[in-house]
Amino acid sequence: MIETSTEVQVRYAETDKMGVVYHGNYFTWFEIGRVRMLDEAGLPYREIEASGYLLPVLEATAQYLRPASFDDRLTIKTFIREMPTVRIKIDYEVWKDDTLLCTGSTRHAFVDENGSPSRPPAHFTERMKAYFS
Amino acid sequence: MIETSTEVQVRYAETDKMGVVYHGNYFTWFEIGRVRMLDEAGLPYREIEASGYLLPVLEATAQYLRPASFDDRLTIKTFIREMPTVRIKIDYEVWKDDTLLCTGSTRHAFVDENGSPSRPPAHFTERMKAYFS
Amino acid sequence: MIETSTEVQVRYAETDKMGVVYHGNYFTWFEIGRVRMLDEAGLPYREIEASGYLLPVLEATAQYLRPASFDDRLTIKTFIREMPTVRIKIDYEVWKDDTLLCTGSTRHAFVDENGSPSRPPAHFTERMKAYFS
Amino acid sequence: MIETSTEVQVRYAETDKMGVVYHGNYFTWFEIGRVRMLDEAGLPYREIEASGYLLPVLEATAQYLRPASFDDRLTIKTFIREMPTVRIKIDYEVWKDDTLLCTGSTRHAFVDENGSPSRPPAHFTERMKAYFS
Repeated sequence: MIETSTEVQVRYAETDKMGVVYHGNYFTWFEIGRVRMLDEAGLPYREIEASGYLLPVLEATAQYLRPASFDDRLTIKTFIREMPTVRIKIDYEVWKDDTLLCTGSTRHAFVDENGSPSRPPAHFTERMKAYFS
Repeated sequence: MIETSTEVQVRYAETDKMGVVYHGNYFTWFEIGRVRMLDEAGLPYREIEASGYLLPVLEATAQYLRPASFDDRLTIKTFIREMPTVRIKIDYEVWKDDTLLCTGSTRHAFVDENGSPSRPPAHFTERMKAYFS
Repeated sequence: MIETSTEVQVRYAETDKMGVVYHGNYFTWFEIGRVRMLDEAGLPYREIEASGYLLPVLEATAQYLRPASFDDRLTIKTFIREMPTVRIKIDYEVWKDDTLLCTGSTRHAFVDENGSPSRPPAHFTERMKAYFS
Repeated sequence: MIETSTEVQVRYAETDKMGVVYHGNYFTWFEIGRVRMLDEAGLPYREIEASGYLLPVLEATAQYLRPASFDDRLTIKTFIREMPTVRIKIDYEVWKDDTLLCTGSTRHAFVDENGSPSRPPAHFTERMKAYFS
């Protein structure tokens, strides 16, 4: 399993008139968790793109348990629980201190520069093997 | 079943450096479909809030089949397929002409002005019965 | 002078915890006005980009006179008041019925595919001459 | 003068199809700088709101000198150069290392809970006097 943790501080722009964070903005926080996880795994997403691959989102889900408020300091925990194959599943948790606010997941597949489905780059697969063997 | 349809035109601000619409922005389009559906059902969301209720999102999902591009004219189809009880499930489809780009769903429950779970307002339940009997 | 008019309906996602539209979102509405103006002038922005030009924003300003609320139907008026040269200045007004909510402007210059400053495409200049002579 | 500095890392969601950050998103970064400045001055914005005041934006401007890219680590510098009166002017600079990417400013005035213009809270004025005398 891979697990990483990163922090966000809630922006005023992220709130809505309900007084709490707009539900769609959690997917941006999941992106922040995912980018951090790839950084920590030595596979920065900007380098993945620079080498000719994209990793678009095929599916995204979120379950909202408790709201987040302006200025809250939150922890985004990001998990890969199964060895990625052609598909990659990533899970997320958003915490405020020891209260779980939101869980979610995204599914991805690599595509090449023409947008055609692709096997992961060899470098990516090797790094993942190191975590899952 | 309730079904409504509305149009959006893709904003430049909604795209990302992949050249297509950022996945998180589809949830805003689902909101547009939901607001339109409630309008057409004679239950405008602004009036629901004015009467002291909120309808927060408990869960949201999206499956991305094909990308949407800047300036595309898209159709958001919104469906309620089951009579709402304390929970309300709403389904969405995003179409470009006759190509399905994205499907998704949201789940909601009413809360009152204190944020406590609440039964739907009587007016809401009556209108829904008209659709599902 | 060129003047066009287009409509937006305020999205819940565009509001913030002050209960009204977040100030930064007006710049997206200005973009909508600008794209519509170029469409009406026979110079769709997607075609400008397809022909190898970009029209980035060099400067943007907004003055906020009255707030906009969720679900408001607003009119975005867009103006080019001076014949574009290497620089293009576009002005905006956001109206709710006959109340002016916001004024603003953007300044732009064409760049080519390498990001280098460029004269406007000949087709663009010809169209503009038709409006300003 | 008051001057503070804070960091942002560019989110994928903040880019657009031009491959760089969408111009409207800089205003959210200015907000981050402003919130940090108030924190450092011992006047957290969430407490200003909790005490019954709002500080809406009356005017906002930005000049874009060079683009910002996905994953860039940027510094937001925030300045109050003149003692605030009924109006408060705040200036911003966005830097990537020692390259200035963007300058901007916002103007604000306090309003009370009814949305009526208001003098700044006494606590705010006292703190400001400490910086400008």
